[in-house]
Amino acid sequence: MDHVRSLIRDVPDFPKQGIIFKDITPVLANPTALRTVIEKLAGLFADQSIDKVAATESRGFIFGVSLAMRLDAGFVPIRKPGKLPYQTNKVSYSLEYGEGHLEVHADAFRAGENVLFIDDLLATGGTALGSCQLIEQQGARIAGLGFFIELGFLNGRELLEGHDIRSLVTL
Amino acid sequence: MDHVRSLIRDVPDFPKQGIIFKDITPVLANPTALRTVIEKLAGLFADQSIDKVAATESRGFIFGVSLAMRLDAGFVPIRKPGKLPYQTNKVSYSLEYGEGHLEVHADAFRAGENVLFIDDLLATGGTALGSCQLIEQQGARIAGLGFFIELGFLNGRELLEGHDIRSLVTL
Repeated sequence: MDHVRSLIRDVPDFPKQGIIFKDITPVLANPTALRTVIEKLAGLFADQSIDKVAATESRGFIFGVSLAMRLDAGFVPIRKPGKLPYQTNKVSYSLEYGEGHLEVHADAFRAGENVLFIDDLLATGGTALGSCQLIEQQGARIAGLGFFIELGFLNGRELLEGHDIRSLVTL
Repeated sequence: MDHVRSLIRDVPDFPKQGIIFKDITPVLANPTALRTVIEKLAGLFADQSIDKVAATESRGFIFGVSLAMRLDAGFVPIRKPGKLPYQTNKVSYSLEYGEGHLEVHADAFRAGENVLFIDDLLATGGTALGSCQLIEQQGARIAGLGFFIELGFLNGRELLEGHDIRSLVTL
């Protein structure tokens, strides 16, 4: 994992002044590092039987579908409003300033399915919480939440209390 | 592939009246179908040595990173403006009405690398053409363009003439 960590690039003042953005594109560009991240994330949930992996656009899709392939699970995209063509369920969640909205297809999950939520980054946890609500609304069970990087100082874990949260890299 | 085809869902009048949208989410949700699509796409390019797979957000990421993992290549995300944190190269391309814009990190490709462009859908080919320009600007070589679904009647192949285009399903 030292190799993977060394490829996470700090970009200062993105998306705004004072924020240091964790750029994961050098990890994605390196086949060995990319494979390591997916293998290690899969290893974190090796004790679970996963029916579906869900993830939010766009970076979440990258890790979510890779995990789904690795765990032989289905993949469910959770999207911003107006992107999914079929009937959807919607949820609103709090952002630092204002509100975010997410949608998932109304037939995405079956009752009782074990669903793993995957994202590249756990920050304040708003997106993950909204996604969990969408998954549970359809009667599925959240088996766990997996993140490549967790920004511990933003306390996303508190917002997501009660869920099984596992991260590869905590900063 | 019959199983995969049967899971592509027609959604009428999305995103606007008169368009029949090809909904691939039932394919993604089915682990066997998802694996089949990735294996078959990989098979289409088995004669090529691929260094990197590039794809555009958001659905393109799903197939692009899966192919990268399968081919043991790196993955490069091509994004809408303002999403990538580091220095970028930009390109504009024609849409049915107006212009689209894409960006890629300025250090995404090395000169001489073999790059496979992957997307879920070949329609008019504008996004693919813009992406190819970004890849070639950095001195990399387009090894081929792979699509899950090709809408043959929109003639995307004409716009992309000179490139090696391979599709799994042509409609």
